[in-house]
Amino acid sequence: MPLPKDSTSAAIYRILQTHSLEEALDLLQTRDPKDSPLASHLSKQTDLTVEAQHLRLNLLRNEEISLSYLDGSAKIEDPQIFEGNIENYIGLTQIPTGIIGPLRINGLYAHGDFYVPLATTEGTLVTSYNRGARAISMSGGATAMCLHEKVSRAPGFCFHDMREASQFIVWCVSHFEKMQEVAATTTSHGKLENVNTTLTGNLVFLNLEYSTGDAAGQNMVTIASEAVCQFIIAHSPIKPRHFFIESNMSGDKKATALSYLSVRGKKVTAEACISRSIVQKYLHTTPEMMMEYWKMSFVGGVQSGSLGVQGHIANGLAAMFLSCGQDAACVAEAAIGITRFDLTEKGDLYISVTLPNLIVGTVGGGTGLPTQSECLSLIGCKGSGCAKKFAEICTATVLAGELSITGALAAGHFAKAHKTYGRKKTKS
Amino acid sequence: MPLPKDSTSAAIYRILQTHSLEEALDLLQTRDPKDSPLASHLSKQTDLTVEAQHLRLNLLRNEEISLSYLDGSAKIEDPQIFEGNIENYIGLTQIPTGIIGPLRINGLYAHGDFYVPLATTEGTLVTSYNRGARAISMSGGATAMCLHEKVSRAPGFCFHDMREASQFIVWCVSHFEKMQEVAATTTSHGKLENVNTTLTGNLVFLNLEYSTGDAAGQNMVTIASEAVCQFIIAHSPIKPRHFFIESNMSGDKKATALSYLSVRGKKVTAEACISRSIVQKYLHTTPEMMMEYWKMSFVGGVQSGSLGVQGHIANGLAAMFLSCGQDAACVAEAAIGITRFDLTEKGDLYISVTLPNLIVGTVGGGTGLPTQSECLSLIGCKGSGCAKKFAEICTATVLAGELSITGALAAGHFAKAHKTYGRKKTKS
Amino acid sequence: MPLPKDSTSAAIYRILQTHSLEEALDLLQTRDPKDSPLASHLSKQTDLTVEAQHLRLNLLRNEEISLSYLDGSAKIEDPQIFEGNIENYIGLTQIPTGIIGPLRINGLYAHGDFYVPLATTEGTLVTSYNRGARAISMSGGATAMCLHEKVSRAPGFCFHDMREASQFIVWCVSHFEKMQEVAATTTSHGKLENVNTTLTGNLVFLNLEYSTGDAAGQNMVTIASEAVCQFIIAHSPIKPRHFFIESNMSGDKKATALSYLSVRGKKVTAEACISRSIVQKYLHTTPEMMMEYWKMSFVGGVQSGSLGVQGHIANGLAAMFLSCGQDAACVAEAAIGITRFDLTEKGDLYISVTLPNLIVGTVGGGTGLPTQSECLSLIGCKGSGCAKKFAEICTATVLAGELSITGALAAGHFAKAHKTYGRKKTKS
Amino acid sequence: MPLPKDSTSAAIYRILQTHSLEEALDLLQTRDPKDSPLASHLSKQTDLTVEAQHLRLNLLRNEEISLSYLDGSAKIEDPQIFEGNIENYIGLTQIPTGIIGPLRINGLYAHGDFYVPLATTEGTLVTSYNRGARAISMSGGATAMCLHEKVSRAPGFCFHDMREASQFIVWCVSHFEKMQEVAATTTSHGKLENVNTTLTGNLVFLNLEYSTGDAAGQNMVTIASEAVCQFIIAHSPIKPRHFFIESNMSGDKKATALSYLSVRGKKVTAEACISRSIVQKYLHTTPEMMMEYWKMSFVGGVQSGSLGVQGHIANGLAAMFLSCGQDAACVAEAAIGITRFDLTEKGDLYISVTLPNLIVGTVGGGTGLPTQSECLSLIGCKGSGCAKKFAEICTATVLAGELSITGALAAGHFAKAHKTYGRKKTKS
Repeated sequence: MPLPKDSTSAAIYRILQTHSLEEALDLLQTRDPKDSPLASHLSKQTDLTVEAQHLRLNLLRNEEISLSYLDGSAKIEDPQIFEGNIENYIGLTQIPTGIIGPLRINGLYAHGDFYVPLATTEGTLVTSYNRGARAISMSGGATAMCLHEKVSRAPGFCFHDMREASQFIVWCVSHFEKMQEVAATTTSHGKLENVNTTLTGNLVFLNLEYSTGDAAGQNMVTIASEAVCQFIIAHSPIKPRHFFIESNMSGDKKATALSYLSVRGKKVTAEACISRSIVQKYLHTTPEMMMEYWKMSFVGGVQSGSLGVQGHIANGLAAMFLSCGQDAACVAEAAIGITRFDLTEKGDLYISVTLPNLIVGTVGGGTGLPTQSECLSLIGCKGSGCAKKFAEICTATVLAGELSITGALAAGHFAKAHKTYGRKKTKS
Repeated sequence: MPLPKDSTSAAIYRILQTHSLEEALDLLQTRDPKDSPLASHLSKQTDLTVEAQHLRLNLLRNEEISLSYLDGSAKIEDPQIFEGNIENYIGLTQIPTGIIGPLRINGLYAHGDFYVPLATTEGTLVTSYNRGARAISMSGGATAMCLHEKVSRAPGFCFHDMREASQFIVWCVSHFEKMQEVAATTTSHGKLENVNTTLTGNLVFLNLEYSTGDAAGQNMVTIASEAVCQFIIAHSPIKPRHFFIESNMSGDKKATALSYLSVRGKKVTAEACISRSIVQKYLHTTPEMMMEYWKMSFVGGVQSGSLGVQGHIANGLAAMFLSCGQDAACVAEAAIGITRFDLTEKGDLYISVTLPNLIVGTVGGGTGLPTQSECLSLIGCKGSGCAKKFAEICTATVLAGELSITGALAAGHFAKAHKTYGRKKTKS
Repeated sequence: MPLPKDSTSAAIYRILQTHSLEEALDLLQTRDPKDSPLASHLSKQTDLTVEAQHLRLNLLRNEEISLSYLDGSAKIEDPQIFEGNIENYIGLTQIPTGIIGPLRINGLYAHGDFYVPLATTEGTLVTSYNRGARAISMSGGATAMCLHEKVSRAPGFCFHDMREASQFIVWCVSHFEKMQEVAATTTSHGKLENVNTTLTGNLVFLNLEYSTGDAAGQNMVTIASEAVCQFIIAHSPIKPRHFFIESNMSGDKKATALSYLSVRGKKVTAEACISRSIVQKYLHTTPEMMMEYWKMSFVGGVQSGSLGVQGHIANGLAAMFLSCGQDAACVAEAAIGITRFDLTEKGDLYISVTLPNLIVGTVGGGTGLPTQSECLSLIGCKGSGCAKKFAEICTATVLAGELSITGALAAGHFAKAHKTYGRKKTKS
Repeated sequence: MPLPKDSTSAAIYRILQTHSLEEALDLLQTRDPKDSPLASHLSKQTDLTVEAQHLRLNLLRNEEISLSYLDGSAKIEDPQIFEGNIENYIGLTQIPTGIIGPLRINGLYAHGDFYVPLATTEGTLVTSYNRGARAISMSGGATAMCLHEKVSRAPGFCFHDMREASQFIVWCVSHFEKMQEVAATTTSHGKLENVNTTLTGNLVFLNLEYSTGDAAGQNMVTIASEAVCQFIIAHSPIKPRHFFIESNMSGDKKATALSYLSVRGKKVTAEACISRSIVQKYLHTTPEMMMEYWKMSFVGGVQSGSLGVQGHIANGLAAMFLSCGQDAACVAEAAIGITRFDLTEKGDLYISVTLPNLIVGTVGGGTGLPTQSECLSLIGCKGSGCAKKFAEICTATVLAGELSITGALAAGHFAKAHKTYGRKKTKS
């Protein structure tokens, strides 16, 4: 049977190439988190003392995880290590970083109990996400599936008229395999997988879609697309009046409607089922009241004209992007999604989050920098082979945040929490 | 004459209350930047050596600007200083930070030559923004106007039917002044300025709009709105079946269509006129080719379904948000805007950027943290009275980035620049 | 107390100027429809025979309602009556027209039992809307409120730079009352109520907002805005490089995000509460299953990137626009809205529809043409004083359609209905 | 070489299966219209007299085109002919209809000089479109390409959890060919071409995409999808908790962001190049001023949050949909598009229109009704084999309207035209 054309089905087929259906389904089965000293420590909210910090660090550290840059004991001496990351260097911006967990994840790629580092300056955020992570883990964890991945560049070509433009398309499509070869000369990790063509009068837009291995891949696809364009210009018998390597149709670093209809980066969906008693005990509200909130918030979100409807995905995503060396500017496009709540037949609470546009990587970009590399190692995502796992952890973390904020809003505790954690105590 | 109802006109009127029209127009007049050793240093692209770093730091430092946390010479010992910013603290994420400038700004609030710190892990970004800043400054600087500001919370109330809902609205509107008093008991900086009401069947959405002084203000408006809601619930003769302090209609931390039709945070517009010779010398292309790019990119952007059409606003904005202690999650909503190019009658290049949704502050949030506070001091934006100035600097910086990336795309240098600055030299 | 600034509150205040709160609430109270021969006739689905047609016509006709053009007994002889409506005339397109009802409406302006004419070529549509109307009427009718109205033109002005542009805004705002006078010279029905100003670099957009009496008003506001622009150009000391009377920012005949944040035409919200037994008897499903549909359809709608989320508002609206002489092109902007379902505490079904953008009128346009005028008279909306009433009838009709299609989808009857009514019986 | 996956490339390949590239390019070559008495008549704007009407009718009529229903000489006696189009019939709504032309079209399917019937009640519309048609024809005509076609239904399925949902997807994808067979049992004209799968937590959305021959096809795809769903439910080992045949993700009768990223109905792009002298003579303005308008209108459109940016596509489209028996409710989704203007190297005016979402057909729906069938015959589009031709004529007509309105706005004649043609002369 041929590979299905649409991305979700294709993704599921790819999974079945490496796992049997039974294995895949077993991975997705809920499981309780294991007991651990850190779990027990983080279940009590602790002060901002040096002692508490060191206790947490000691419980997190092991022979593969040093955390010496994060805790300030090691110091960066030579800025040369930032080559490829910065120019006109003057120093290091320092962002406070906290930890949440355990977050039990039952994913295709992420599997186990995770302690997730979040870098932020917004008080309440870590506490809130930690509360959500706990409620999820107590309920057997978050199921997560990384469904698909691609990154695109969209060169644009301008012709005298539509006749030239359509001849150009004919030529391009019949040279797609050659374009793949040209792209392959620029990278060993990325692959040109597909090209979509849009004809708008005398303009031709090519959406070149790549897989990018474990890199977020924006640089990779830019350099490959430059080579593809140079090949096209050199060999196509029809020359454009002018062309640009990016026609602004790829959605790069922008929130766009592309998100729900195609994929940029990775598409991940995650869910959890929270029992009524856990909702009552940890979130101090009921599944029914959370459903009331969700119904109102969906109408509010639609009236605001947002792309997707959700609570505060940007909060957790920005915090993970910062701690783990992702491109913070990509929050603009990655932080859109759909959060759903429902009641199960037994009266428990169902929650899911779908992120269609998660631009992340575990190699390249800022992932090799000192503290960022340490944070990636905390969640077992350092280096090659970890990008899909990292994407699932991001999404499960966002799920925890959505659960917690909705619980706070439903319980009427939202303002109180921000008063407690979001202000210095000495201030009025 | 009464204050005009719409926000842009009202903003212009507020300006005329503190300046005469002549003074305001004089502020907006283009002026060349002054010579300085740092300007001359940054005009040559320098290596990532400790020496180059120290040279830059020495030229930036003065008696008001220490930079000792940024350069690593001072160390944070007690995490208690992060109270209100983080919980479950484990350490500090460190983000490389570079400097661009001089960026000449002729704004209503920002006036002079600025050296702007940018924290990022994306190679090329600082170089590219620096190139744009230089081209703008050589052309007499960027004109900028901070037009308006407000931050909202949108509580939602559910009733049995529309009859109850409309009675509730009647009561609310006739108690607006009382709501203002209640809000005022929670904050001395913010003020409830307006309420917009939306009736959708039996649901009532109140958009409570606040001015927030020099704070970004999300916490402030949450706490004030909680008090307003409690007042309403206690006194309204019509009680809702249930209500929530945020109905998801405020656009908080989300890209929404609200942006172009109302304002969240600050709305700023900035422009510059770049002479043909500077376009040719610094951007290696022509105003005409940049116009060709803009025309294609506008069509590409519209086809992608983006909110506004622009190049990579998120890049510069995220980098300033990080270095200057803003909320990184707000990139999701702030990084939308409209970038325009045009040819002047003389054949020079006109560029403008409009950011309708700039959530920024110079007090509260992360603005008082060690490196963040130092970065704010670098641009003269530390503390009270600086939020509008900071908003204009953000927008002028974004203008520099939009100019530079469009120049690179028009000149065909985009991929080459990322190959040079975005990869480690030792890598293939 | 001053008039509230936001439109919904202002609308409710205007209502209270003509009614006491008690009177207004009494109008909105549910009431059962009265018995009538036509109600009884339409409760049985009847054939397409001449006899059935004449029976319906006889029951609809009275001394004020002739229907002789609609039934073909009167013939238009002189095309001169189409002056102002058509050029290059060649004849009359004929659209089959059916009737639904009774539709009980308890509105601020529409009050009573309505028989609504729908012109369409889509089989099933009339039957489906009729079924919804019946279920609503059996439940005491639809509550409806016409909340607000305005129509805008958005002239745009281009200047050399932002300094000129801001001077221009200062001048405009200080001459608003003069603009109102100028607008008033062109029309006795419309009034310039407000101007909103947008500054985007060196471009100034003025959104001139008018009330238009009982006309849809697009021509009226165009002619008034032309006069306003000529006044501005003649008297403003700052002249634009060029200007256009419509900058494409008014949303004229386009689906835009403006809809939920401002108002074009009229904003109307309507609701009904359908008892469980009526849902079961007429829609052959349960309130719970309709809620399941609604929850899924909201997610589907958001994923499709629609403006608002609803079922098939365009169907009923287009059919009423055609029969009643509205501008069919305005379906493009009017047919967006939000449909909500909910369960009441007693387990009955709540439904509401909100149309934020209903461009309709009962004078001008096609409202005076032969069949169109007859159709308007059928619902008591012929001529002056009827526009808000007509808007409420449109919305209640749409409510009936949304109820019926959702019922069909929830019951699994959607395809079957289209197979029965949407195909000729002689066809396979 | 395999068929390309993306729709535009695939469409171009399909064209090359029936034409050589040379033949296809020859079809797209510009050609002047032929002289004719009707062309000469319509070049003078004529009065609304019976004589003028009859003159036009006589010039349009030939042995294949009778027009006797349109001119009122034939009368519909038996409403049974409306079976499948209406229920509860009471009579015929009559819409004035005018003619424009010649509109020279050089399309892949539409080829020649067309006289296009437009049904509307908006004065000025026919005159304005006629003016545009003339300017285009004088310039050698409009080039047009119908690129692609498909219509979708999007059933949705709800499961207990993501594990069940993913098993269901695996089953569906491996039974796609069986689904095609099942769909084929319900229709001989349509074909299930593709299925796209979206997984959002425990919800599965299947976008079933069909080709529909010469029908608009909404009924066809509903009935086929019902059969597909029944097959799935009967045979899938994993049963959904519930499912609905349409999950609101198909965009049916709604303006959605789907339009630019996929295709509903037909996607057509058309263009023309208008010489400077014709712009001056017929539109009374210059190519440069029209470009100024376009640049401002694009910014205005983006600020309004419209889907695509264009002038008044809905006007011409609604008028053709009415006269030619299309579904008027589909204006809601079809009337979005992108209009582009540019200057050629010689200083002439380039214009293109792209309609991504044109739901039209020439069989089924209202296409066989008396006047509608006559109007289709006027443009040679009656019956099978004409849907793509009709789609190209629609788009070229819209092109004429966009040219004319932009010319009027650029020349400052927009308000004047509406004053002349949009009001009765006897009214003030």
